[in-house]
Amino acid sequence: MKNDDQFSDFKEHSVAEFFKKNRQMLGFSGKVRSLTTIVHEYVTNSLDAAEEAKILCDVTIKLEELDKETGHYKITAEDNGSGIPENLMGKALGQMLAGTKFHRYIQQRGQQGIGAAGVTMYSQITTGKTTKVTSGYRGKIIEAKLNIDFKTNKANVEILSKEEGDWHGLIIETEVKDVKYDKSVSGVYEYLKRTAIANPHTQITFIDPNNEVHIFPRSIEKIPPKPEEVKPHPLGMATNDLMDFAHRDVNKTLNQFFFETFSRMSNSKVKELRELLPHINFKKDPKKLEWSEADDIIRAFQKIKWIAPSVDGIYPIGEEQIRTSMINILEPEFLAVIERKPKIYRGGIPFIVEVGLGYGGNSGRNSSGDVSSSDVMRFGNRAPLLFDAGGCAINESVKSVDWKRYGLKSMKDAPITLMINISSVHIPYTGAGKQAIAMEQEIVDEVRFGIMEAARKMQAHIQSVVKTKERIHKKKAILRYIHQVSEDLSYLSNIASFEIENLLSKLIEEKYDTKKDEKELEEAMQNGGITNGEN
Amino acid sequence: MKNDDQFSDFKEHSVAEFFKKNRQMLGFSGKVRSLTTIVHEYVTNSLDAAEEAKILCDVTIKLEELDKETGHYKITAEDNGSGIPENLMGKALGQMLAGTKFHRYIQQRGQQGIGAAGVTMYSQITTGKTTKVTSGYRGKIIEAKLNIDFKTNKANVEILSKEEGDWHGLIIETEVKDVKYDKSVSGVYEYLKRTAIANPHTQITFIDPNNEVHIFPRSIEKIPPKPEEVKPHPLGMATNDLMDFAHRDVNKTLNQFFFETFSRMSNSKVKELRELLPHINFKKDPKKLEWSEADDIIRAFQKIKWIAPSVDGIYPIGEEQIRTSMINILEPEFLAVIERKPKIYRGGIPFIVEVGLGYGGNSGRNSSGDVSSSDVMRFGNRAPLLFDAGGCAINESVKSVDWKRYGLKSMKDAPITLMINISSVHIPYTGAGKQAIAMEQEIVDEVRFGIMEAARKMQAHIQSVVKTKERIHKKKAILRYIHQVSEDLSYLSNIASFEIENLLSKLIEEKYDTKKDEKELEEAMQNGGITNGEN
Repeated sequence: MKNDDQFSDFKEHSVAEFFKKNRQMLGFSGKVRSLTTIVHEYVTNSLDAAEEAKILCDVTIKLEELDKETGHYKITAEDNGSGIPENLMGKALGQMLAGTKFHRYIQQRGQQGIGAAGVTMYSQITTGKTTKVTSGYRGKIIEAKLNIDFKTNKANVEILSKEEGDWHGLIIETEVKDVKYDKSVSGVYEYLKRTAIANPHTQITFIDPNNEVHIFPRSIEKIPPKPEEVKPHPLGMATNDLMDFAHRDVNKTLNQFFFETFSRMSNSKVKELRELLPHINFKKDPKKLEWSEADDIIRAFQKIKWIAPSVDGIYPIGEEQIRTSMINILEPEFLAVIERKPKIYRGGIPFIVEVGLGYGGNSGRNSSGDVSSSDVMRFGNRAPLLFDAGGCAINESVKSVDWKRYGLKSMKDAPITLMINISSVHIPYTGAGKQAIAMEQEIVDEVRFGIMEAARKMQAHIQSVVKTKERIHKKKAILRYIHQVSEDLSYLSNIASFEIENLLSKLIEEKYDTKKDEKELEEAMQNGGITNGEN
Repeated sequence: MKNDDQFSDFKEHSVAEFFKKNRQMLGFSGKVRSLTTIVHEYVTNSLDAAEEAKILCDVTIKLEELDKETGHYKITAEDNGSGIPENLMGKALGQMLAGTKFHRYIQQRGQQGIGAAGVTMYSQITTGKTTKVTSGYRGKIIEAKLNIDFKTNKANVEILSKEEGDWHGLIIETEVKDVKYDKSVSGVYEYLKRTAIANPHTQITFIDPNNEVHIFPRSIEKIPPKPEEVKPHPLGMATNDLMDFAHRDVNKTLNQFFFETFSRMSNSKVKELRELLPHINFKKDPKKLEWSEADDIIRAFQKIKWIAPSVDGIYPIGEEQIRTSMINILEPEFLAVIERKPKIYRGGIPFIVEVGLGYGGNSGRNSSGDVSSSDVMRFGNRAPLLFDAGGCAINESVKSVDWKRYGLKSMKDAPITLMINISSVHIPYTGAGKQAIAMEQEIVDEVRFGIMEAARKMQAHIQSVVKTKERIHKKKAILRYIHQVSEDLSYLSNIASFEIENLLSKLIEEKYDTKKDEKELEEAMQNGGITNGEN
């Protein structure tokens, strides 16, 4: 009998089959979002590759609408990076969970080895077509087309041509259906604009489906530092992480292992450890470390005073750059930029939070210029996060702030733009689509503190502007009555009206020195209010 | 030079490694949530297994706190299902993407083949321990302990004992750290309570860390129908799905393939198809179907009038059961239960939406009895969804309703509880943690329509209650003055005061027949207002 045994259908599946059935987990749900996801995957790969190869990144995205009804588009992504070697083209673009990023402790936008292969998948299941790749790598230019064998999660690669040539870079051409281009805040244009804001060293060219060319020019001619692998910080390490590190270690003794593996580990710290753990043999092979020992070591880590994690390997956008970008787009009445000190979360993973808060000017307005409501621009390692705001640690932090304390009736309707970037060697995204950051307490707290720091500065600004405006307003109101009052007093006292008026005017001018006020206000409204986060 | 070539570090990874590094994607973030996730995975597996084996499900969850500081708990889950055969114990509990559910078109709570293996993983990375399993399957009772080899995503299984015995079922014992039990709305108690509400055929016993025993008794002694695989509906099928079905088909001709594969496919429908597609050979081997042909077939599917998808294979909770459950917990002043007709979303996948709306009584109150705000209880295939509400289609629908149109000033503060369940052979969860449903337009719309239908009934109730209350209030106000007015009129007219008072009373009683009003109101407040969704 069919199905009599409920286990007769027991099967194993590949990760490619899993994401094929659950494409929404990679960001392929909704036509606009699907297109933005594709561009996101290609652009972040290009930025990562250029930074690793120490190249000033140029990236071009071209969208062509092939059929409106079915949402059929061709996407071409070109960069000037190092290209991909022939033997890895299939794995990089047609196999899930393969790549250089997943296992390394290094700050990059991609970190899962899924993204570009996910686009190949989406192309394949919506159009049945292969994805075309042209790679210029170390003197060779190779054209290939590829897709994914879902059963095995391996790439099928067909080489189309090989030639010698100096050009380096990568061109990917893919066709998909069920997508849509628009200029909404979750669309490709806004995505690229925000990418440019957070990556001033990058030149982005966007050719939209109407063949209009939009250029987001490079504003800094400096290659950002090449991201480096970093050593984990002992604080916050979990037993399991320590076991992993120890068991794949090549050092001969536990002593050496500690030195080589962790940041902030000095002679005296290892000595402290040894004193706290007399029952553990520090000359033993780290591969033979047992769980209970690792457990004790983790507890001992918590008892030692450590220097904060190093910022090596973490590259925030930078205060000056955030300032420049926000002034350019928002022309705010007031601006504060906060760069928090590095902190760590679960597993000893360091991260840095940056907060820019613009108030007034075009802050809180949407792209079309309408006053809408406050705007929160979220970034993870400089990549814009446009979706799933509701489940993101950043929005949780924004909501947790008591904005009334900072002089706002309602944050929602205030003319505020918050730009928040989290930099880390591993950002804990809630899903493979990498659009929201999990609510790790340390991250939520840090973002919250950053916002509060910026909000305090904003409050001082709002108060001073409000007070000055009030003084000017009062003075004007009083001056409005001065002529009538002077005439009435003149009638009662028989003193000439103009004398009384002069006297009263003088009195008022003395009490309300509005020349100073007006100058202050003008400064506050124009640039004086744009503090540098230091005052 | 180390790292000179950025590709020297290119590696492939297993899906187990992926989720180990990204445990938050499986719901392991936050101490309370992690514990609820564990219970969720075990309980849904037990419910699914019992339904497949046609057994009335008994499930017991026991939590023991072993160490408060490290959040060290032991979790024991026991059910009376069919157990697991020896050769599959490792795969079912120690290998990701393996199981009976992923590839079948069948309504179950689990659908990914990740859940229980995810718990084994979490136990392993927080305590280094194995998970113990006792399985009674077809006369054999087997004890084993197991964990995951992360490199290969295979289980390590050690059999501890084997014996003959009639007991059938599954007992899983696992230890984890970094979790916490509390009675919050996202905790285990609330999770089990809601599971009981949506699964009245199940007896749930919960032994909390204080050794208190909570029993959620079975309220229906009827085994729910065994879920059956269903055939997909032609409407909404994507080309890629059709290619998949055709290429793994065993029929000899396309003609046969259509009959066997799809629901609602009749002789006349296949004839219509043939007429629309004269260029396609319906006698060809389905394995040889080409993309362009599949594309044409999909377009032809859209042109034919189909009968709506069958409800076979989809098992909603049922109107009566929702009614009983909501009256039991909420004692609402008003209740409407809506069961919508089946609809389909992407890929021809049918689903059914059920909406219960309770107003007044204990509606909108939290567990501790405080009036908090409106409450939305989300369910996917009868499993409670407690997390990630912000990114869920259900909440999106609730927000999209203009509640003012239904007589509410603000939905947020109204004494309302919404219970919404989506039943489908494949629910498009946003993540592997299965806590939010992706915003597929068809699903958002259906839930919205269901809510609006319920809200219209609520509005009628609110209006009638409000009007009746107003009439009673007016009458009382007038009666308050009648004595004084009668005396004044008596003084002016010399007619006896009591005569005037009698006359006026009679007049008022005629105009405001409050005996009827009071009776109506009483009925509306007690049970008359609890409509059956039909009026």
